[in-house]
Amino acid sequence: MRVATDFRDVPDRWYNIIPDIGFDFPPPMGSSGYPMTHHDLSPIATAPIVDQELDRSERNPAIPKELREFYVEWRPTPLFRARRFEERLDTPARIFYKHEGGSPSGSYEFNTALAQAYYAAHAGEKGTRYLVSASGNGEWGASLAVACNYFGIKCRVYMVRSSYEQREYGRYLMELLGAEVVSSPSPNTRTGKKALSQDPESPGSLGMALSEAFEEATTRDEAKFAWGTLMNHVVLHQTLIGLEARDQLRHGGVRPDLCIAAVGGGSGFGGLAFPLYRDRKSGIRFIAVESAAAPTLTKGRYGWDYADWGGLAPMLRMYTLGHSFVPPDIRAGSMRYHGISPLISALYREKRIEARTYTQRQAFEAAVAFARAEGFVPSPESSYAIKAVLDEAVACKDRGERKNILFLLSTNTNLDVAVFKDFLEGAVEDKHAPMDKIDEAISSLPAQPSV
Amino acid sequence: MRVATDFRDVPDRWYNIIPDIGFDFPPPMGSSGYPMTHHDLSPIATAPIVDQELDRSERNPAIPKELREFYVEWRPTPLFRARRFEERLDTPARIFYKHEGGSPSGSYEFNTALAQAYYAAHAGEKGTRYLVSASGNGEWGASLAVACNYFGIKCRVYMVRSSYEQREYGRYLMELLGAEVVSSPSPNTRTGKKALSQDPESPGSLGMALSEAFEEATTRDEAKFAWGTLMNHVVLHQTLIGLEARDQLRHGGVRPDLCIAAVGGGSGFGGLAFPLYRDRKSGIRFIAVESAAAPTLTKGRYGWDYADWGGLAPMLRMYTLGHSFVPPDIRAGSMRYHGISPLISALYREKRIEARTYTQRQAFEAAVAFARAEGFVPSPESSYAIKAVLDEAVACKDRGERKNILFLLSTNTNLDVAVFKDFLEGAVEDKHAPMDKIDEAISSLPAQPSV
Repeated sequence: MRVATDFRDVPDRWYNIIPDIGFDFPPPMGSSGYPMTHHDLSPIATAPIVDQELDRSERNPAIPKELREFYVEWRPTPLFRARRFEERLDTPARIFYKHEGGSPSGSYEFNTALAQAYYAAHAGEKGTRYLVSASGNGEWGASLAVACNYFGIKCRVYMVRSSYEQREYGRYLMELLGAEVVSSPSPNTRTGKKALSQDPESPGSLGMALSEAFEEATTRDEAKFAWGTLMNHVVLHQTLIGLEARDQLRHGGVRPDLCIAAVGGGSGFGGLAFPLYRDRKSGIRFIAVESAAAPTLTKGRYGWDYADWGGLAPMLRMYTLGHSFVPPDIRAGSMRYHGISPLISALYREKRIEARTYTQRQAFEAAVAFARAEGFVPSPESSYAIKAVLDEAVACKDRGERKNILFLLSTNTNLDVAVFKDFLEGAVEDKHAPMDKIDEAISSLPAQPSV
Repeated sequence: MRVATDFRDVPDRWYNIIPDIGFDFPPPMGSSGYPMTHHDLSPIATAPIVDQELDRSERNPAIPKELREFYVEWRPTPLFRARRFEERLDTPARIFYKHEGGSPSGSYEFNTALAQAYYAAHAGEKGTRYLVSASGNGEWGASLAVACNYFGIKCRVYMVRSSYEQREYGRYLMELLGAEVVSSPSPNTRTGKKALSQDPESPGSLGMALSEAFEEATTRDEAKFAWGTLMNHVVLHQTLIGLEARDQLRHGGVRPDLCIAAVGGGSGFGGLAFPLYRDRKSGIRFIAVESAAAPTLTKGRYGWDYADWGGLAPMLRMYTLGHSFVPPDIRAGSMRYHGISPLISALYREKRIEARTYTQRQAFEAAVAFARAEGFVPSPESSYAIKAVLDEAVACKDRGERKNILFLLSTNTNLDVAVFKDFLEGAVEDKHAPMDKIDEAISSLPAQPSV
């Protein structure tokens, strides 16, 4: 059931949470331990993006008018009430989901892809001619490809080799949309050559693909790097989700008690949760749901670490499993990452948000129940959020509480239908992160700067 | 660009074109040559569905209030203007598309699936416990599965064996959604046994799967047959599409000059075009686009033929390639059918609508250009419509005409991404229907009743 169908406004400003968090929040760090400046970051991103990344004071930065006209093409996205799912669970809780799957690329990731491509085309120094990035299962890459097409620039995506070879639909989609897709590790970059010399059969990892894309962006004037998650400016762009959801719920007379989303790098969670964070005095709880294969918040170390495998990208202060840790090969490709958004990390450390971990079988079981009740097939990533929603809804039943639960259905592309087939046939195994490997990776974290 | 974003009305009545066509329109025919009555049709469908099928007088039948509440959950669907596609084509034409891919099942077919499941659950005689149907690539079956879930009844789908084995994503999706999927021909039915005895390796066909589903519905009290296309009541349910599009265009101040959709069985075309047919005095042209592999309107015979391969289903007066004709194995599974909606057939015969034929490579080339401009990846079926749109837009450029072109983007499920990969790699061949086989199938049409 769609909520607030006569509400049609799209925000004209994003929401930057930093002025509201009440504690200092450091910028990214260079490898020799200095806080990075606009100048340091400008080789890899356009000036407006760097401004957004480093901005600590502007609570409501304006969305450029021309960019907003693109958002208005398909936004606001619908907010649905999962009435049938509630009925199946026989819960007094009310479950709402913000559904981002109707975007032109089928994913919430289009929100930031569009902004980054817009700035690259309009504010690109020295003539940005293409964006380069890394993608796990291809959804982020597909969003970036569409966004680049909109503004007439090229798109190159380093795709983790195991996904490139085994989860072809994501690759097919990116190529159909005109992106150049490179299997990572590749001979294109020094990082890739190094990885291949260590192991010619390397399956790759998201951190490795990030290093390759990052290296390409830093060494070519005509390229800029596009972040799919993690960074402040990406979460900023995604706050459209939560800003709309907040207004839609208000319009429907609903005060949310719980706000739930899966976290890989954290941009979906931050995008939904941060605009609601302003209402935290109402008692709303925020739950970030991660995979048992990459339990960054619950089992990681809070400290400075590289965003990528090769140590080419900036260091970020965040919860991390260590940039050399390669998570087990679970189906939710974009949750296989060692770190998590510095903003989310900081809020978790301050106990402003909660974290919870599930295995993939727990997640997929909940997702199948949801799909059969509601129709929409969630992505593997959203499945983790749905498991948390299910548990909370059942707890409401046990306690006789009528809570309002809001969650993010981030994607609806059907690229992962085969995953659910494997699950239904019993061919999906639970995978837990090996703690000894995490300890090993954490023990080799870079020297911690004293700032 | 979304058009008329502040238009939020969902029709409360469907549109039945029959009172407006100005000529007699016969009901389905039993195999011994008599016009079928309510009584004849009731074993396979619920009473309200039979009423809708046979109704010749009610122009605007009411949508039951309770059913409409389901439609309002995701309707009205967006009407987009393809501004970027127009720019790429450098055409003065304006191109609009009604996008049905955001439905809970990802397809326009959910419109009729929902109505049929609603009536089966609420008006099912002798306790309808499940709906049975046939599906080519699985999209119709997925829509039916979701609709059955909504109303707590079961769903069984006979899926053409070649698709069952080679285009697994459709099968995975149906099974994920809880449908029981049977590879056709199957040993479940007499029809299936007969086909298997003739050829144990038979790849099946849509007509054969229809026969199996039909046989099951007629032999089991607890089952009703669900039509995915072809029949009047299916087109009636789909008129939601055109009713909304007409209002959205009016609201945006646009008068359409051309209305274009692909035709398999015809329900998408009819759903979009029929409500606009009332405005035909404005000079609007209607173009039904079919595949060169099944050129029913352009190369078929107008006459009575069975809807299915085995001759179990009613006879319909329509353009047909002969029910024994098996079209070449093109990628647009639901366009591989020998007949076409009797209403569309009659209007084509009366020269009220036009027909046009393209090969699959022509269609996919246009679809790739569209996807790269707009983001949304069309289904193989919608690709045929896009090719016609492209040709008309280019013609507008040549003639300096600023026409308004409306077309249907019926599906956006990504189930067919591999098709485009094959096309881009040059692995898709054009396939034309073999005329000698059509002649043979037409020469063995059933005796033509004299009504």
